[in-house]
Amino acid sequence: MKPQVFRKLVSVDEAKRIFAQNFMSKPVGKEFAPLSEAYNRVLATNMVSPLDIPPFNRSTVDGYAVKATDTFGAEEDHSVALKLIGRVNVGETPRIKVKKGTAAEIVTGAPIPEDADAVVMVEHTVRKAQTILVHQSVSLSENVMKAGSDIHEGETVLKKGCVLSPYEIGVLAAIGLAKVEVYRRPRVVIFSTGAEVVEPGKLLEGGKIFDINAHALSAAVAECGGEPINMGIVQDQSDQMKTALKKALSTADVVITSGGVSVGPTDIIPKVLDTLGKPGVIIYGIAIRPGKPTTIAIIGNKPVFSLPGHPASSLLIFHLFVRPVLASMAGKKEAPLTVKAVSSERLFPTRGRRTYITVTLKREKSGRIAASSVPTGLSGAITTLAKADGFLVIHENQQFIDKGQIVDVELFKPSVHYSLMR
Amino acid sequence: MKPQVFRKLVSVDEAKRIFAQNFMSKPVGKEFAPLSEAYNRVLATNMVSPLDIPPFNRSTVDGYAVKATDTFGAEEDHSVALKLIGRVNVGETPRIKVKKGTAAEIVTGAPIPEDADAVVMVEHTVRKAQTILVHQSVSLSENVMKAGSDIHEGETVLKKGCVLSPYEIGVLAAIGLAKVEVYRRPRVVIFSTGAEVVEPGKLLEGGKIFDINAHALSAAVAECGGEPINMGIVQDQSDQMKTALKKALSTADVVITSGGVSVGPTDIIPKVLDTLGKPGVIIYGIAIRPGKPTTIAIIGNKPVFSLPGHPASSLLIFHLFVRPVLASMAGKKEAPLTVKAVSSERLFPTRGRRTYITVTLKREKSGRIAASSVPTGLSGAITTLAKADGFLVIHENQQFIDKGQIVDVELFKPSVHYSLMR
Repeated sequence: MKPQVFRKLVSVDEAKRIFAQNFMSKPVGKEFAPLSEAYNRVLATNMVSPLDIPPFNRSTVDGYAVKATDTFGAEEDHSVALKLIGRVNVGETPRIKVKKGTAAEIVTGAPIPEDADAVVMVEHTVRKAQTILVHQSVSLSENVMKAGSDIHEGETVLKKGCVLSPYEIGVLAAIGLAKVEVYRRPRVVIFSTGAEVVEPGKLLEGGKIFDINAHALSAAVAECGGEPINMGIVQDQSDQMKTALKKALSTADVVITSGGVSVGPTDIIPKVLDTLGKPGVIIYGIAIRPGKPTTIAIIGNKPVFSLPGHPASSLLIFHLFVRPVLASMAGKKEAPLTVKAVSSERLFPTRGRRTYITVTLKREKSGRIAASSVPTGLSGAITTLAKADGFLVIHENQQFIDKGQIVDVELFKPSVHYSLMR
Repeated sequence: MKPQVFRKLVSVDEAKRIFAQNFMSKPVGKEFAPLSEAYNRVLATNMVSPLDIPPFNRSTVDGYAVKATDTFGAEEDHSVALKLIGRVNVGETPRIKVKKGTAAEIVTGAPIPEDADAVVMVEHTVRKAQTILVHQSVSLSENVMKAGSDIHEGETVLKKGCVLSPYEIGVLAAIGLAKVEVYRRPRVVIFSTGAEVVEPGKLLEGGKIFDINAHALSAAVAECGGEPINMGIVQDQSDQMKTALKKALSTADVVITSGGVSVGPTDIIPKVLDTLGKPGVIIYGIAIRPGKPTTIAIIGNKPVFSLPGHPASSLLIFHLFVRPVLASMAGKKEAPLTVKAVSSERLFPTRGRRTYITVTLKREKSGRIAASSVPTGLSGAITTLAKADGFLVIHENQQFIDKGQIVDVELFKPSVHYSLMR
């Protein structure tokens, strides 16, 4: 049953609502990764420790394991004598008992032997054959790292959805895991269309340009936790397009196409998509600038995003519409990164469309952050985005953004924030 | 010839100076990466565009290519008639000339034909058979994206040392590169030592703990642009250690060991290292807390960092000493990320040692950022670092840091900064 279809431009908010009605963005699955490949993956389950860390009481110093009460009264000029009964090394189970009046030599990290409850540092002792003279008292548990004091058995050490950094990988190793359950990366097939695009590295004939989008979008997919599969360039003829989309849908969780300006993505791609499964195309264009010629389809519960051919437009639409979906499918909890800034100029929207303006940000002496638009010139310019720090939004009901007005700027990278604020 | 050797603790500054005297941190080499594997790699040369982007004057709209002067005087109620002489599609070299009084149909992205110098949007025309009635004048170059207007031939588009994001990969594709020269990742062999450590996933016998360091350090190496090679656990017996270090040095650019508390890294590892090449061990311990039992050797121009066994200590020493070296070897320009914060408590150093205290940060209502120490308890605790946002430093000549004192806190991740400031 085909749900509500709009064969006209829809607003950004309507587009998001229609998409959400037709597709639920959720993790695509789980898999086990060995610790050596777990860096930067997303944890798929809450991790509960099956053991205490450390698993036993450990000495934190080199010295002598004792009963604390035996050392009471020991001072620099008044020693207490204890009988040396043996030695405990790291990595072994102690077979000795430290009874009243005795001491066992112990090294840092070794298990505290039975009946001992503190460790005297070697610096506070004098050894005479089998006798240890203790010159400083210790209190109960002094110089002992207790079993479970770092992590206790049954404790939830890491939460599902966390991205694994070196520290979290250290925690997983600590509780003895050789492999960890992570979310599978969504597989994303990407291709470009258009009679004018040529694969970089090939000969550029007259009237042609090198394909940017399949490469930039593949990297963008990797950046947000997907597994990009770059199919290169597909000619926007019905037969080739049908073959390519069928192949893409058979292997991918998500398909991204871009371009097709000769005939237009509003023509061939949507027609072909509607023959491939239900509900087919659900969005035929968005009242947005840049990025109006964006169509979105759902086929066999797989989203197909057909983005504009202009690189800056397609990367912006990716950022706004595709990235949040992929992040959810990868199990990530992502929120947009925004800062308040002051517009350095009066900015006008394209009438009737939500307008996104790429900006550079600069912190002024007053502490204010100034946002200046990056002249897109014409939206094909790839260098626009490489120069910009983020973008601001002019909503459909706004006539303009005034010079000096405070605006929210969404950042492309967290590092921009740091550069601004230090 | 063996340079100056210190067989005693050296200060942090001395350690850095001695290291710099014995090893020059610089990129380990260059290699070509296909664009599909270039994401997050470091550019090894300045990139100069071999061509104009776009390579030809392009139409930015659907309409008619004309001579602008032919349209002067055209208005809504007064059209100018031009003779239609053909059509230009995208991806082809136009074979027609637009002489005075003529127009050529053109689509978005197609090359402007010879002698035309502007494009009239289709919305401002009426077509009658082979005659185009133009109802709005265009100025010179209107609706034309000029050759080289995004990137011009010979322009430096990206600088050496830049980390390749989707936008930079788009720029590389735009100028036609199928592969790009990037810095080779330094190969880093990592192993743990100690009679008490067991590989995660294996059976944990009495007195043993799971090895954390080789796994956490491998991820830390990957994070700063190195290629980790995890050799697992090596027993700290002279023979095994010699075999392991020889093997490591034969394949790696850098070697990292950790632990060895039963005998101590100040014993076996330095002795073995001194038999393997010159200058051998150059640092036998650092006046730092945590992390004192750190030794550093240079053998055959390869650094060998022997870090403490305590996970929190070894990761901190990695951050302070190893990470900057690896980043330089990977061709990256990294600067520490710091913020000003207010200490929530009075903090004391360990006498005579530069003291690093891990802290959590919190922005207060007043806008101040408060730094609170994370109780390390005992420095073996791996969870300490997973909970901390960064660390502050108490220098050797400071008696304490007072409650309310303003301090520099170095952050573990840029995202911490964003979370604090929004």
